[in-house]
Amino acid sequence: MADSLRYAETMPPVFTLTAGPVDAYPEVLRALGTTVLYDYDPAFQAFYQEVSRKAQSVMGVDTPPMILQGEPVLGLEAAAASLIAKDDVVLNLASGVYGKGFGYWAARYAKRVEEIEVAYDDCIDPETVRRYLTEHPEIAVVCVCHHDTPSGTINDIDAIGAIVAEAGALLIVDAVSSFGGMPTSPAACKAGVYVTGPNKCLGCPPSLSLVAVSDAAWAKIEANPHAPFASMLSLKDWRHAWKETEAFPFTPSVAEINGLNAALDRYMDEGADRVWARHALTAAACRAGIQAMGLSLWAVREEIASPTTTAVRMPEGVDAAPVMAEARARYGVSLSAGRAETLGRLIRIGHMGPTAQPIYALIAVAALGGALKAQGVDIDLAAGMAAVQIRIDAA
Amino acid sequence: MADSLRYAETMPPVFTLTAGPVDAYPEVLRALGTTVLYDYDPAFQAFYQEVSRKAQSVMGVDTPPMILQGEPVLGLEAAAASLIAKDDVVLNLASGVYGKGFGYWAARYAKRVEEIEVAYDDCIDPETVRRYLTEHPEIAVVCVCHHDTPSGTINDIDAIGAIVAEAGALLIVDAVSSFGGMPTSPAACKAGVYVTGPNKCLGCPPSLSLVAVSDAAWAKIEANPHAPFASMLSLKDWRHAWKETEAFPFTPSVAEINGLNAALDRYMDEGADRVWARHALTAAACRAGIQAMGLSLWAVREEIASPTTTAVRMPEGVDAAPVMAEARARYGVSLSAGRAETLGRLIRIGHMGPTAQPIYALIAVAALGGALKAQGVDIDLAAGMAAVQIRIDAA
Amino acid sequence: MADSLRYAETMPPVFTLTAGPVDAYPEVLRALGTTVLYDYDPAFQAFYQEVSRKAQSVMGVDTPPMILQGEPVLGLEAAAASLIAKDDVVLNLASGVYGKGFGYWAARYAKRVEEIEVAYDDCIDPETVRRYLTEHPEIAVVCVCHHDTPSGTINDIDAIGAIVAEAGALLIVDAVSSFGGMPTSPAACKAGVYVTGPNKCLGCPPSLSLVAVSDAAWAKIEANPHAPFASMLSLKDWRHAWKETEAFPFTPSVAEINGLNAALDRYMDEGADRVWARHALTAAACRAGIQAMGLSLWAVREEIASPTTTAVRMPEGVDAAPVMAEARARYGVSLSAGRAETLGRLIRIGHMGPTAQPIYALIAVAALGGALKAQGVDIDLAAGMAAVQIRIDAA
Amino acid sequence: MADSLRYAETMPPVFTLTAGPVDAYPEVLRALGTTVLYDYDPAFQAFYQEVSRKAQSVMGVDTPPMILQGEPVLGLEAAAASLIAKDDVVLNLASGVYGKGFGYWAARYAKRVEEIEVAYDDCIDPETVRRYLTEHPEIAVVCVCHHDTPSGTINDIDAIGAIVAEAGALLIVDAVSSFGGMPTSPAACKAGVYVTGPNKCLGCPPSLSLVAVSDAAWAKIEANPHAPFASMLSLKDWRHAWKETEAFPFTPSVAEINGLNAALDRYMDEGADRVWARHALTAAACRAGIQAMGLSLWAVREEIASPTTTAVRMPEGVDAAPVMAEARARYGVSLSAGRAETLGRLIRIGHMGPTAQPIYALIAVAALGGALKAQGVDIDLAAGMAAVQIRIDAA
Repeated sequence: MADSLRYAETMPPVFTLTAGPVDAYPEVLRALGTTVLYDYDPAFQAFYQEVSRKAQSVMGVDTPPMILQGEPVLGLEAAAASLIAKDDVVLNLASGVYGKGFGYWAARYAKRVEEIEVAYDDCIDPETVRRYLTEHPEIAVVCVCHHDTPSGTINDIDAIGAIVAEAGALLIVDAVSSFGGMPTSPAACKAGVYVTGPNKCLGCPPSLSLVAVSDAAWAKIEANPHAPFASMLSLKDWRHAWKETEAFPFTPSVAEINGLNAALDRYMDEGADRVWARHALTAAACRAGIQAMGLSLWAVREEIASPTTTAVRMPEGVDAAPVMAEARARYGVSLSAGRAETLGRLIRIGHMGPTAQPIYALIAVAALGGALKAQGVDIDLAAGMAAVQIRIDAA
Repeated sequence: MADSLRYAETMPPVFTLTAGPVDAYPEVLRALGTTVLYDYDPAFQAFYQEVSRKAQSVMGVDTPPMILQGEPVLGLEAAAASLIAKDDVVLNLASGVYGKGFGYWAARYAKRVEEIEVAYDDCIDPETVRRYLTEHPEIAVVCVCHHDTPSGTINDIDAIGAIVAEAGALLIVDAVSSFGGMPTSPAACKAGVYVTGPNKCLGCPPSLSLVAVSDAAWAKIEANPHAPFASMLSLKDWRHAWKETEAFPFTPSVAEINGLNAALDRYMDEGADRVWARHALTAAACRAGIQAMGLSLWAVREEIASPTTTAVRMPEGVDAAPVMAEARARYGVSLSAGRAETLGRLIRIGHMGPTAQPIYALIAVAALGGALKAQGVDIDLAAGMAAVQIRIDAA
Repeated sequence: MADSLRYAETMPPVFTLTAGPVDAYPEVLRALGTTVLYDYDPAFQAFYQEVSRKAQSVMGVDTPPMILQGEPVLGLEAAAASLIAKDDVVLNLASGVYGKGFGYWAARYAKRVEEIEVAYDDCIDPETVRRYLTEHPEIAVVCVCHHDTPSGTINDIDAIGAIVAEAGALLIVDAVSSFGGMPTSPAACKAGVYVTGPNKCLGCPPSLSLVAVSDAAWAKIEANPHAPFASMLSLKDWRHAWKETEAFPFTPSVAEINGLNAALDRYMDEGADRVWARHALTAAACRAGIQAMGLSLWAVREEIASPTTTAVRMPEGVDAAPVMAEARARYGVSLSAGRAETLGRLIRIGHMGPTAQPIYALIAVAALGGALKAQGVDIDLAAGMAAVQIRIDAA
Repeated sequence: MADSLRYAETMPPVFTLTAGPVDAYPEVLRALGTTVLYDYDPAFQAFYQEVSRKAQSVMGVDTPPMILQGEPVLGLEAAAASLIAKDDVVLNLASGVYGKGFGYWAARYAKRVEEIEVAYDDCIDPETVRRYLTEHPEIAVVCVCHHDTPSGTINDIDAIGAIVAEAGALLIVDAVSSFGGMPTSPAACKAGVYVTGPNKCLGCPPSLSLVAVSDAAWAKIEANPHAPFASMLSLKDWRHAWKETEAFPFTPSVAEINGLNAALDRYMDEGADRVWARHALTAAACRAGIQAMGLSLWAVREEIASPTTTAVRMPEGVDAAPVMAEARARYGVSLSAGRAETLGRLIRIGHMGPTAQPIYALIAVAALGGALKAQGVDIDLAAGMAAVQIRIDAA
């Protein structure tokens, strides 16, 4: 390809098909530019409550979730800091880089962290969790990552949540990159603390967390003398912030709240079922294409592959970085790298929010396949593209 | 006034003349809606470095400041958590609610916090600081708030900074609501850690902090075993994040970075001197009008009143809340309340970013004066408005 | 005033208080950036019909008005070209530059144009029209400008319209800068062709016309062999374009239609009565201030001054241009010049859409008064500002 | 495909791959929302001149082109009305619906219109024009459409222009949907009047025309007593409007000028050569895919197919409308219908501005092919997609 036709690194790509930050919905981008209101202006107070109520409705919870003013790692760190008390024994479930990472936060606050770890292309067997909890009744908190994004794999949090509830422990769920793109809710997994954010499947830019806390988890947090307060890491500070009568612990990110509002409206207008269905179909078509080309999914079994991200295993001896660079330079398509243990070994295609439309699977397969070909990897690109189309048409 | 002509609480006000969140520049609002890029896309990597360099230039520092991904209370909490070690004795300077509040964070991390406190309508005398430091050579860190926003008063941080430096201690400066609106920089006050944000005088929505750290402060932070890392509260995590070769500790707030870039461009295009001059003139005209109406500044002496906020003392027996509500309902002008000790006792008029234009002083004086009159307070509104105009014209 | 504090001509002003183009509503500005749809896409077809229906509702007509794809001079020229036939005798009513100007278009298409002309600071007496029509039963079309913007004066089109209807002639009304800012509608003035646009009191940028045509006028247009078709100047081409089943004669201005939609929503949400009331009060307060300063309205009697524009007569020997330049340089306030006969002799303050808020009258009076003072004119600025405030508070 | 997965007509499509209105660049969409300035404000006056100069530079002409305030049909109608005098004999070149249509305008103003017409899938042979002009030396004006969009075919206007110039006639060129997407300029085709617009390959919404007029054409226009003036159709009115010293004949479309400015900046930043190359490659890849599927181009020979639109001939017995509807419902891809003679018989894929990126060819081929398959047409979709990819990679 002539150099003059390649996309320069300084130009934005044509498509951003990543696992986050993701392409935002145009409605959201426009809403970000709404006139900034004073946080104590009555119009903003009413608006904030309204947005909180919409988030409550979308998450299916009894009181509005907290909208923490930082991307979901804030929600996760705050969850660990708030819920885990000094004498708690915690069970961390690690099936990927993010789940593993949460254990480090847990260890900061807990007496002891136990861990069930599986290979990062696999997922946690709920029965193992059941056995573990039976054998270790002292465990107070269990932590699980729903969609371990760096692996593109899904844990069965509803099954795990039922087991944890039965054992009388509290579950912290990282549902950051699954919520809004597939059927999942705090209630369905009986979560103690359920952390997600608008910056993945809801199609917003990163900068806010959504955190739902159960009554039992609130009781534990309020009883925890070390739970942060008067701090960015505090859940307690924000518990009642959605009420018009309550002060904000600090200034909310007004523009991002405007964006969130647009995203929630859009989600409810389209309908959760339809949104989930197009995420699922986009991912299914993408997987069909990847496999038909002769590539493998990173996930050890297709049924644990996420409907919101497809992680593609690099063939033996192929480094992901130059392939990603080639996809971008040649087709203008930006894809996601792995992280830590998965870095270099896989490439991720995000199906989140505005890019969770089946036709995007074709772009992704074409760009990834074409880049691999250009790097000398022998794949059947035509078969891949055909398989995408067939899968879409079979829906 | 007929009810039908009053501004409903559900309608946004006509003017937001608050001390924060402030009205944002239109350039910034438009920039927030820029296409969201993947944080590891080369175009974003180059862009982030470019924005960091602009922030460096605007702040007059040797390396890019850290752009923390939360409004400046994050920067302040992170500064306390990072710089103050367990065996440090800290001197906190409190001339207002924000300065006082920082002491609580300091106390969380220090062995002991000493405090020089003055009335919240006054400011810290640098000579008192000198004497204190001479008498207490064990003090390692001094904390000061430049513009204590809830009081609208300014501390002489350049004089204080020189004294602190001489004493061999490190200074933490809260310059959140002064930087960008008046002459101040990390170098001028010899700050160890200088915290500000784009959400005040730079005219952005709240959601980011800008933190400059001196070499000496970095040495202290790196030596502090309890300085946060792998945490939202960490300065260390972000130290090198501006470099293209470095990973982000977590996902940056892409949209807000786009907004910051526009704000920095605008600031440099207009020129810092002109920006500061219009902040100063707006405040001076506002103070002239307030006093000519027969009202008093909150500041005990006019020379310590901030060029970025005018705090107006409520007359004896007058509560601020209904006055603010009246200004909004009658004229569509949203003003700021006080905070904690100053709540109810003063009303604040912000002069920050886009509202730091002299003609806005007239709107503020008219709305505040008219609301007071409507509440039965005897003031000379015509004299107030005339004084504003005369002050502007004398510039 | 120090040069460094004056607003450079290259910088945008702080306030645009003009009679058009006017400051647009923020909702409209954001809507302009909506994703562009193909005009024959079913989503756009449905949307265009919906916008047409909203315009119909706001204008109070039986079928959707035509949305012509050019600012309202297009609507006016098209009205003349379409309605006026070669053998028509036309009566043109001229009380200002725009009314006078319409006569030139009329003359292009008519057999003969008669004219009733009054001084450009006065308005047409409906009884004169009645007498004229009685004496000249051959007159087929009467043309009137509701708000002759270059003079800031209002003709009583409802009275005139009743007389014209009685005489069996058809009325062409230019309601460009009155509609949406005061009580006026095609029905109220029994208009044959009623031309307005979203770019004045509805708060949009200039680029569209709204044209309502009565059944009788349609009959005349369809019978006119020279009425334009297949032309930018055609009304006929667009008659049915709002229907989903009909093709567009040429491509609609998609972005501007998006803006119009937002403007109509905003207007209906606030309610026409409230919108009109704030236009009226803003203008009344402005006039009170102007006169209290010792200046005169351009309008020979206050009751004919427009609620959407205040035209201020320059004192003897004072040229408007340097005064306007001074208001802009000194206060950042952009005001409107006169046109043709009124150029240089008056300055206009627009009260349209977002600037039709009473507090803006204060800004306008202060800026205009201050500029005159700076130019050496002896006025009582303090009295002017006080009068504005008193008038607002008396509402 | 399950109904719930199909795209409803009320939802906007995922991709708009049409020949106009086209998807606009995000920079343009954001620029449309820029604060509206008064047209006589000095900042707008300077800005308008600057935009005019950029347009001049991009079009490669000696003085700024006129920016007419309506989509390019206005420019075309104005060109006919202005240049063609009552005693002119005009030669109209018709190779498609648009070229043919121009003849009707020409006939309105000319003494007589001669026409060379070819099949609407073919193009005009310059040698035929030469012979015609030799035989008809009385011809004063020749009219040609560069890219007859409803056919997706290109006339060789540079060759035709040279012949017309040699014959001493003046050429009116419709370069609306070619300019900015391929090498073409007023100078290269020796145009008398060259009409284009920002709403096609420059990636703006429709609402402005760009018209360049040669000195000879100006002389003819100025000498034409019937050339419109004081009219929307006038070229003369706008001749000098770009100069700061000149008044605007009527109010410019401020928001659209802001959009145009962003589009011109973007075009110059990327570089015309690169922009043209990606238009060419996108179209080439699209044609390769179409043909490999077993479909035919509408163009009788591939070398006359436009680099900015690919028109695909429907197979015998297949109506375009349900195919387009299927592509939209199934894949969310909006395609363009034909017009008049080509309506129903072809489907058009636009490659203009933001969609002139090679990877879009794949989307278009997949959506069109998939829709045809769903309608029971036997095509080899896999071969089509493979051919697209191969063509891109061969670049």
